[in-house]
Amino acid sequence: MAVSAENERPVKVLGWAARDSSGLLSPFEFSRRVKREQDVTVKVLYCGICHSDLHNVKNEWGFMSYPMVPGHEIAGVITEVGTKVTKFKVGDRVGVGCMIGSCHNCANCGDNLENYCPEMVPVYGGKFSPDNDSEDSNGMINYGGFSEIMVVDEHFVFKFPNNMPLDGGAPLLCAGITVYSPLRYYGLDKPGMHIGVVGLGGLGHVAVKFAKAMGLRVTVISTSPSKKEEAMNHLGADAFLVSQDAEQMQLAMGTMNGIIDTVSAVHALLPLIGLLKTHGKLVMVGLTNKPLELLAMPLLLGRKIVGGSVVGGIKETQEMIDFAAEHGIIADIEVIPMDYVNTAMERLAKGDVRYRFVIDIGNSLKSY
Amino acid sequence: MAVSAENERPVKVLGWAARDSSGLLSPFEFSRRVKREQDVTVKVLYCGICHSDLHNVKNEWGFMSYPMVPGHEIAGVITEVGTKVTKFKVGDRVGVGCMIGSCHNCANCGDNLENYCPEMVPVYGGKFSPDNDSEDSNGMINYGGFSEIMVVDEHFVFKFPNNMPLDGGAPLLCAGITVYSPLRYYGLDKPGMHIGVVGLGGLGHVAVKFAKAMGLRVTVISTSPSKKEEAMNHLGADAFLVSQDAEQMQLAMGTMNGIIDTVSAVHALLPLIGLLKTHGKLVMVGLTNKPLELLAMPLLLGRKIVGGSVVGGIKETQEMIDFAAEHGIIADIEVIPMDYVNTAMERLAKGDVRYRFVIDIGNSLKSY
Repeated sequence: MAVSAENERPVKVLGWAARDSSGLLSPFEFSRRVKREQDVTVKVLYCGICHSDLHNVKNEWGFMSYPMVPGHEIAGVITEVGTKVTKFKVGDRVGVGCMIGSCHNCANCGDNLENYCPEMVPVYGGKFSPDNDSEDSNGMINYGGFSEIMVVDEHFVFKFPNNMPLDGGAPLLCAGITVYSPLRYYGLDKPGMHIGVVGLGGLGHVAVKFAKAMGLRVTVISTSPSKKEEAMNHLGADAFLVSQDAEQMQLAMGTMNGIIDTVSAVHALLPLIGLLKTHGKLVMVGLTNKPLELLAMPLLLGRKIVGGSVVGGIKETQEMIDFAAEHGIIADIEVIPMDYVNTAMERLAKGDVRYRFVIDIGNSLKSY
Repeated sequence: MAVSAENERPVKVLGWAARDSSGLLSPFEFSRRVKREQDVTVKVLYCGICHSDLHNVKNEWGFMSYPMVPGHEIAGVITEVGTKVTKFKVGDRVGVGCMIGSCHNCANCGDNLENYCPEMVPVYGGKFSPDNDSEDSNGMINYGGFSEIMVVDEHFVFKFPNNMPLDGGAPLLCAGITVYSPLRYYGLDKPGMHIGVVGLGGLGHVAVKFAKAMGLRVTVISTSPSKKEEAMNHLGADAFLVSQDAEQMQLAMGTMNGIIDTVSAVHALLPLIGLLKTHGKLVMVGLTNKPLELLAMPLLLGRKIVGGSVVGGIKETQEMIDFAAEHGIIADIEVIPMDYVNTAMERLAKGDVRYRFVIDIGNSLKSY
């Protein structure tokens, strides 16, 4: 028998939601489920704005329904723990990322790859079956981190080391793991390797930081010559290529072990594949749903691959956070109040942020 | 100072050559280089006709010049050995494949991957620098296996085990290694894995045989329903999918660890990527120079890859031959006389051969 939303979700929460495909966000009161034995309650203090939030508030990928509370780069403090919680205690500094549930039974869950579980439950959006252990039993919609509190199974919560700030650390939960995981999985993490990072935005700038911390030689590839100085002097890249400069690109042909391609717009793959050495790997992490052109011949003749990767499993995400803390890696952020979010979305669409907006939820979330 | 072709190549040889982009082959007298210390002379007895020969005689990829003697699936007997030859003696049954030279100094040569050496010398066609150790010093053109004899550095010659027939074994030197190498390199060789083979031609039919010998479950994917019976009953495939049958394809979604895609025509990758499990690998081995459409999203969401592979190194090719001999694998062939070659090319263009033409060079090569 279906349980009413009121009974199932008695915990009242304030958030900001998009109501339609205009994507405009405004205050929204909703309810979260009763805390379960394995749940922790997290008071949200900071939440990053990812480029995918921009797509989702307008439902450009078609996965979403309204009202929608975005936010999947969530950092805060634990305020309550369920009776069977073992990893956390009240007061712990924690993060919540892109996922809050998975089946725990499939091969991918068994391999700590909950992100590839067919029943993976994203932190916001989507309707799911009543059988999984997600927040949205009964087909209700999940709500993300642009909100006062989260109620989450402790399995999907990350510990923030003491030296990791909550604001600059929050974006690592999506941007960080999105670039860290493919560097590891595709074996592009061996000191001395040369990798390219395409696109210097939220993902690209942390890709440079992780790659440098792994001991790699890093070349940033960008359409914007204006980013060169910052890429090299501030982020520590070893070289910079303007992708439209045929001569520069030609000189760099065949020099890279791998490329992390963060661009989500349609773009040419052939010049990037040309930058790879034989057996090189072009890994796409920018979600685009329009087809790209692929020439088979250069893949064959150089035994190259084009691959993809999306965030990372829970275990690897914690590993990434610990690695980041050890190497002093955080995102470069612009902290904004909640009511700036619509302006921030507009600026993000134009690439006008270095490199991640983070909303100061703790101090600025109000109903207005 | 340039050496004249007459002085450099005093060994007179009869072959069949294409003279222009009509691709028509006819008898052609030419000369081969003087045997060097590491060279063996091979009396050619059989030579397979590969689909790439069909492209090359018409210079469809633009790599070639005329006159051109094709043939890179060469089997025969050693008739002479140079003073420094150590691997072979007169009378040995041997093969020569796609390559007859490489730099021996680069990282790929060091890794026994001469096929990816930037100075790799193909057995026919192309002009190369005088610095490498190939037959065509002084920028002369190499001539392939549609000819009486080959003069080849022993490094690029393969031993045929006693139980390996020369006629059915010859096609393994290209078709065989082209599918064997990616099964190994991409880790698609673990017993119990499920792989797809797209296209049931010269490459595809030996891919099924190798995959079965490795203990894999094999599904053939073809546009031709008529090939089902032969794929399953004769070649031993476990299942057969008609690629145009949306219902069949839908049922097989997410079931394969990898796919060996032998199709060189433009075709849709998306349904093939859909057949892969998460972390699955689509490996293209069919050379096409027209762009294919690639959607990034399914690669990301399933951490899948699209890769390529072209033949294999010398060490791995010998390993492949030995594996084939051990498992009784040879190509299914139609043996033809030399003067049937133009008809065979026409039939090959229509896919009218099961599955490889092999020219009986030893008994039928004449000047007419």
